[in-house]
Amino acid sequence: MEIIIYLAGEIHTSWREEIKARSNALQLPITFVGPMENHERSDNIGEEILGEQPNAILKDEAASSINNFRTQILMQKADIVIALFGEKYKQWNTAMDASLAITSGKPLILIRPKEHHHALKELSRKANVTVETIEQAIQVLSYIFEEK
Amino acid sequence: MEIIIYLAGEIHTSWREEIKARSNALQLPITFVGPMENHERSDNIGEEILGEQPNAILKDEAASSINNFRTQILMQKADIVIALFGEKYKQWNTAMDASLAITSGKPLILIRPKEHHHALKELSRKANVTVETIEQAIQVLSYIFEEK
Amino acid sequence: MEIIIYLAGEIHTSWREEIKARSNALQLPITFVGPMENHERSDNIGEEILGEQPNAILKDEAASSINNFRTQILMQKADIVIALFGEKYKQWNTAMDASLAITSGKPLILIRPKEHHHALKELSRKANVTVETIEQAIQVLSYIFEEK
Amino acid sequence: MEIIIYLAGEIHTSWREEIKARSNALQLPITFVGPMENHERSDNIGEEILGEQPNAILKDEAASSINNFRTQILMQKADIVIALFGEKYKQWNTAMDASLAITSGKPLILIRPKEHHHALKELSRKANVTVETIEQAIQVLSYIFEEK
Amino acid sequence: MEIIIYLAGEIHTSWREEIKARSNALQLPITFVGPMENHERSDNIGEEILGEQPNAILKDEAASSINNFRTQILMQKADIVIALFGEKYKQWNTAMDASLAITSGKPLILIRPKEHHHALKELSRKANVTVETIEQAIQVLSYIFEEK
Amino acid sequence: MEIIIYLAGEIHTSWREEIKARSNALQLPITFVGPMENHERSDNIGEEILGEQPNAILKDEAASSINNFRTQILMQKADIVIALFGEKYKQWNTAMDASLAITSGKPLILIRPKEHHHALKELSRKANVTVETIEQAIQVLSYIFEEK
Amino acid sequence: MEIIIYLAGEIHTSWREEIKARSNALQLPITFVGPMENHERSDNIGEEILGEQPNAILKDEAASSINNFRTQILMQKADIVIALFGEKYKQWNTAMDASLAITSGKPLILIRPKEHHHALKELSRKANVTVETIEQAIQVLSYIFEEK
Amino acid sequence: MEIIIYLAGEIHTSWREEIKARSNALQLPITFVGPMENHERSDNIGEEILGEQPNAILKDEAASSINNFRTQILMQKADIVIALFGEKYKQWNTAMDASLAITSGKPLILIRPKEHHHALKELSRKANVTVETIEQAIQVLSYIFEEK
Repeated sequence: MEIIIYLAGEIHTSWREEIKARSNALQLPITFVGPMENHERSDNIGEEILGEQPNAILKDEAASSINNFRTQILMQKADIVIALFGEKYKQWNTAMDASLAITSGKPLILIRPKEHHHALKELSRKANVTVETIEQAIQVLSYIFEEK
Repeated sequence: MEIIIYLAGEIHTSWREEIKARSNALQLPITFVGPMENHERSDNIGEEILGEQPNAILKDEAASSINNFRTQILMQKADIVIALFGEKYKQWNTAMDASLAITSGKPLILIRPKEHHHALKELSRKANVTVETIEQAIQVLSYIFEEK
Repeated sequence: MEIIIYLAGEIHTSWREEIKARSNALQLPITFVGPMENHERSDNIGEEILGEQPNAILKDEAASSINNFRTQILMQKADIVIALFGEKYKQWNTAMDASLAITSGKPLILIRPKEHHHALKELSRKANVTVETIEQAIQVLSYIFEEK
Repeated sequence: MEIIIYLAGEIHTSWREEIKARSNALQLPITFVGPMENHERSDNIGEEILGEQPNAILKDEAASSINNFRTQILMQKADIVIALFGEKYKQWNTAMDASLAITSGKPLILIRPKEHHHALKELSRKANVTVETIEQAIQVLSYIFEEK
Repeated sequence: MEIIIYLAGEIHTSWREEIKARSNALQLPITFVGPMENHERSDNIGEEILGEQPNAILKDEAASSINNFRTQILMQKADIVIALFGEKYKQWNTAMDASLAITSGKPLILIRPKEHHHALKELSRKANVTVETIEQAIQVLSYIFEEK
Repeated sequence: MEIIIYLAGEIHTSWREEIKARSNALQLPITFVGPMENHERSDNIGEEILGEQPNAILKDEAASSINNFRTQILMQKADIVIALFGEKYKQWNTAMDASLAITSGKPLILIRPKEHHHALKELSRKANVTVETIEQAIQVLSYIFEEK
Repeated sequence: MEIIIYLAGEIHTSWREEIKARSNALQLPITFVGPMENHERSDNIGEEILGEQPNAILKDEAASSINNFRTQILMQKADIVIALFGEKYKQWNTAMDASLAITSGKPLILIRPKEHHHALKELSRKANVTVETIEQAIQVLSYIFEEK
Repeated sequence: MEIIIYLAGEIHTSWREEIKARSNALQLPITFVGPMENHERSDNIGEEILGEQPNAILKDEAASSINNFRTQILMQKADIVIALFGEKYKQWNTAMDASLAITSGKPLILIRPKEHHHALKELSRKANVTVETIEQAIQVLSYIFEEK
């Protein structure tokens, strides 16, 4: 049984690499997918494909339409969503992806630093599991495949 | 034709009162519902009903379970969701409610200050309409019922 | 039993007035809803609410986001959709609305001039009933409520 | 991860060959499906299988029932729909297929010449991405699989 | 609490009148809807509205498109479906309506003469309740509203 | 805004009367529905309507088909489900109703004595809110309608 | 692209063998599934597994529960349903399976002798394609995979 | 055709081993999945991953959130659910899983000792097939793949 996991969340640190490395080390039968991790390219993809836009808002709209397209496809392929909230940034798209997962019936693991517990309380209550570290998330994933 | 609108978003300013007053002034056939607007009570409702909890995270979990219950009922009754992002706070539950609306096929109006356009670009691209003021949101609502 | 019907299609002739008048004459328990019929206002509504846009395409995008918002709300309230194709114009939004009705399980009556039969054959085959005149559409509606 | 794309739209030019060739050149893991591209055969398939029909409308109905059958199967297999509007013809079945994709939650890329922007504004606003050339559509597809 | 019931099945006897009379006698808060009961008109409705058709099959197709339209609307309004199989006729549309009710999650009461038990065993196993008489069906309906 | 609540659970005590009385005292705009509360009649309803059955299992099957019919109708009308587990009996139908509510997206309040926490932990984690007393359930309901 | 087809309908003739042989001859990438074709075993499967039942109706109920279980699994795996009506028998389970296919959005081919056109008119109008021979059904299937 | 079956129910006896062995002996193309069968670990998994919890209820909540996560993933992969009720314990999570299967349209086999027939009558009536032994369940599964 193969499982596909969408890794939603910030693209400023290398947390996706860490989660993939640990999953590989345990030989879990998981394929990970996610957003474009090159932040600059993600912001520029609209103009890269559609040409220069009249202003910053329209540049953002062009980029987000293509990023949303990518996310929608990969999310629909996914069996599980992991959403990680970092310590900085608004991260509203992470909250959007997490909520989409819950509403679509896709199991959700939330990774967040403890200090965000108050601001994330409603999302956390709807997530299947809330953890504080990548190590804990990997343990939860590993448990799916364990028999003893 | 009666329409019900859920007003998602921050509960620190009186924007809901303003939206209701303007809708009434135009005699729009709209009923507005929304979260508990008494912020302190919203935070304490878990302990108010379930008794003291062992720590701050569990106090939050108790409160959010009851607030989520209220939101789920009123959202399911709603034909439209309006989500307002203010200038302060994380507002992740607002993003969660907005994403739930989109995923459930409920039309969404996003109200946000212009300076948030970058952080909200993915959500804005999925919303039906993004505006900057309550006045604009009211104009959009009014337009539903106009014939000329 | 009250029935709500969304009248999709061109806004250059007064066909909606005719259908309402005939329905009233037969005292059918039907409420009709539909798009903004003032064509110019429909095209300008984006700039009316959101302000001047950088170019014609963006003016169209602003207008269509608000018109789509109106359509989505009224369509979700409707029990039946009637889509009328006239003899002129591209009318792709009419085809879009008709297809949305079919895909959402809403019964659809298609009204089209005979000469459009070839171009509309796929849509016609999926519609519940295809007729050529408003009079025929009214007869179909009336039949729902007849006992003999 | 394999992706299936349904190519909706006109069958008078060889745009599908171009899109397949470019996708192959980039070694994208995509399978393309679509309607019968032999226009004459598509129009005659009803009589080819069911025998001669009483008139032109019924010939069309017989053909469209079999073409709709093919489309429904292939669309349900597809992860993405690309709808191309050419410069000629009514193309109402293209609008129908595009709207079905949106309503079914399948991501949609719209390809259309700039001069159609006004007539396609409602559909364009609902599509994930609107582009003007096949090259741009390929860039959007390629972006799904890129990591940097 | 008002309940709407669609009465599917043969239109050659007056079983619908009997069920309505008994429900009225018990003052059950039920509205009954159903197909056109004038058999001849039901068969001719296609030609009545659309004009003479080329042959008997096409006359049937025209009639059934309008009858299916009526059924779809009234079924969607219904909370419950009762399907009655008589002793004669093929009654395939009754089986079709009953199966649609089951598949759509609408509770179904099946009324059939005992001698049909073998031919109806698959449908009966999926129905909520199978009875042999109208009196029994009314008892089942009455039970919904009883407190003791 | 009127709300309908299905009261699932044991029918040996008068907890439903208590919940209705308290709701009335607070003038909450709630209608309560639920199963047949006359236990003996609930067990005999199959034979009452369908006649004597060959053995105890078939008597149970006849009764449960009619009770399930009633539950399905009233559950579909309900906006909220409250499931109460008492201290005795297997109560597997209560667990079935509670799980159906969750799976159908209906908000669920679980009322259970503290000593059942271990056996009900999976269901409790999926419920919106778990409480120990009817008084607490009423407070949760009241909170939906409060503004301060 | 592999396609799975459920072959619903009578189990007294060898039409399934014919359809499989023709599909193989054309090397269509289709897997066919269907009901137990040994009629006697299909009727006895309830007692074969669950032991002797009190009477003929209960023997039927036991058998149909296991046959419905098989059908539900195989239908859910199927991309297409073909329903064949023969000249004899009530065939209500065939109508049930065909209606389930339509309601679930699975494309349906109806094969029926011409003389059944009147009794099957409602079902035929909802089917994607109605044909009279297996040869025609195979031509429709083959058309899905043809490019010219 | 590969089939995946989720084995819901008690984890105190080795019934899952028996069902797998018999299925293997018949070379049925079935993969079985299910909950963590090490009872102690299942109860402790919350504290194992999330650390010590303040009290027994919170230890249960932590464990059940991770067990529910595992169940949701494996259930969504399953084509069929088998739920076994043993002679001891409350087994409310088994009833929850069985009800989720029914509500999600997944075929369900219920295995229960005869003496539980009364307490399980509502669930049994909704299950596709109710049997008393593992041997009977295997016969039902085998029947799916048999042609004669």
